[in-house]
Amino acid sequence: MARASSRRTPLWQAIASALRDDISEGRYAPGDKLPTEAQLSERFGVNRHTVRHALARLGEDGLVHTRRGAGAFVSARPTDYPIGRRVRFHENLHAAGRRPEKRILSIETRAATPGEAHALAIEEGAGVVAYHGLSLADGQAIAIFESVFPEARLPGIAAALSEETGVSAALARCGVPDFIRASTRMTAVAADATRALHLRLREGDPLLRTTGVNVDGAGVPVEYGRTWFAGDRVTLTLGEDSAG
Amino acid sequence: MARASSRRTPLWQAIASALRDDISEGRYAPGDKLPTEAQLSERFGVNRHTVRHALARLGEDGLVHTRRGAGAFVSARPTDYPIGRRVRFHENLHAAGRRPEKRILSIETRAATPGEAHALAIEEGAGVVAYHGLSLADGQAIAIFESVFPEARLPGIAAALSEETGVSAALARCGVPDFIRASTRMTAVAADATRALHLRLREGDPLLRTTGVNVDGAGVPVEYGRTWFAGDRVTLTLGEDSAG
Repeated sequence: MARASSRRTPLWQAIASALRDDISEGRYAPGDKLPTEAQLSERFGVNRHTVRHALARLGEDGLVHTRRGAGAFVSARPTDYPIGRRVRFHENLHAAGRRPEKRILSIETRAATPGEAHALAIEEGAGVVAYHGLSLADGQAIAIFESVFPEARLPGIAAALSEETGVSAALARCGVPDFIRASTRMTAVAADATRALHLRLREGDPLLRTTGVNVDGAGVPVEYGRTWFAGDRVTLTLGEDSAG
Repeated sequence: MARASSRRTPLWQAIASALRDDISEGRYAPGDKLPTEAQLSERFGVNRHTVRHALARLGEDGLVHTRRGAGAFVSARPTDYPIGRRVRFHENLHAAGRRPEKRILSIETRAATPGEAHALAIEEGAGVVAYHGLSLADGQAIAIFESVFPEARLPGIAAALSEETGVSAALARCGVPDFIRASTRMTAVAADATRALHLRLREGDPLLRTTGVNVDGAGVPVEYGRTWFAGDRVTLTLGEDSAG
C-alpha cells in the first residue's frame, strides 16, 4: 500500500474558513470592521500570529483589507452564484454587483471522448468543439470551465465562440435561440496541478465541480459543460429565484 | 510567510477520479465489467501498479469489486442526492435504491453562536438544540451534518429529535407540520481532522458543504443546517424533478 500523503489543516486555515463563513453568511458586511486581533485571538484560542496569518489569507482572497492602525475591514463577500434551470453565469455576476470577465484559454475541434459522446448523445469519436477558459469576478479567477459542443448539430460553432461575447450569443448564431439546463450535477474534487495553477490555488485544494447538459427547445443536447469553482471564493446558491 | 503545505495529487488518484466520473455519469453501469488493467494502463499512459492502486481505492469506496481472474466490475454508482426546495434526504436515498441510515452523534442544548443566531433570526446566546450526526447509504458514511433548532420556538424539540426517526417527524411533533428550504448554499471545503475521521477520509480531502435554512409555513426559520458530503461518494443533482 502506498502511504497516504499527510495533509494537516493548519490552524490559521480553520480560522480563515470560519471568518470566511461569517462574511459569506452576512454576519460581517462589506465595510464592516472585523474584531481586533486581540479579540479574534481570544475567540479562537490562538495566538495573534495565527490570527494575522488567517487575515493575510483573506486579504489575498480579496475579502478583507487592513488599514494600518485601524484594523481589518471587510472588502467583499465571497461571490454568490445562483444556479438553476435558466442560469446565465455572466448575468448572475452582474446582478451580484461583480464585474464578470471570461478569458478563453483554447477553442479546438477534436473527437468526443466516450464520456462526452454519452452526455451529448452522439457517436464516440464524432467531432466536438471544446471551449476552455476562465471565469473571473472583479479580476479574480473564480472558476475554470470546459464545454464541448456537437459540431455536426451546430455548424460554425467554433467561429461563433471565438467571435461572440458568450455562449448564449454563439448558440443563437448557430440556430439555437434558447436553451435550458437539463440537469446539473455537483460534487467536490481536489484541484489537480493545472487547475490549481490557473485558479492560483494549491494543488489538492477543494474545488466545487458542476457538470451540466444544456438542451435546445426540442430537448436535444447542445452543450456539455464542466466548471470547477474555487471553493474558497464562490458559493453556489439555490433559492426561490433560481429554482424556476 | 509560512510555507504552503505540499499536496501533490498522486497519479492513481487522478485515474480513480476519471473512472469515478465514468461510473457516475453512466458510462459504466452497475454490473458492467471495466476495461482490463492492461487496457486502462494504455488509456491513461501509466503502469499497471498505478491502475491497480486506483481500482483498490474505488473498491474501498464501494464502487467496484474485483473477481479473481475475471477483472473489475462496477458495484454501484456514487450516491446521487437530489437537492431542491422540498428535499427530504431520507426519501431521496430510498428513491435512489440506497438503504439510508442516520447515526446520531450528539444532541445538546447550548447558546447560539453569532452565525447561528443570524441564520435563525434569534438573539445571540439564545438557546438552540444542536443535532449532530452521520448520514449513511448502504452502511457507508456519505455525509456529516449539524443542525440547530431554536429552542423557544420549538418546545420539546430535543426529546422529539432523540425519539422520532427523522427531523420531519420531530418538527411535526413540535407544531411544524411542514417546512420548506428557504435557501441552499453550496461550496467546497477541505475536511478537518474530525470530519475526516467520521467520514473515513484523509484530512484535507474535498467535501461539498451545503448550508440551508428551513422555514415553516409562515416563513419563520425552524432549522439551520450544515451538511458536509464526502466529495468522492456523493453527487448532488439539480434537475427538473428537484426544482419544483
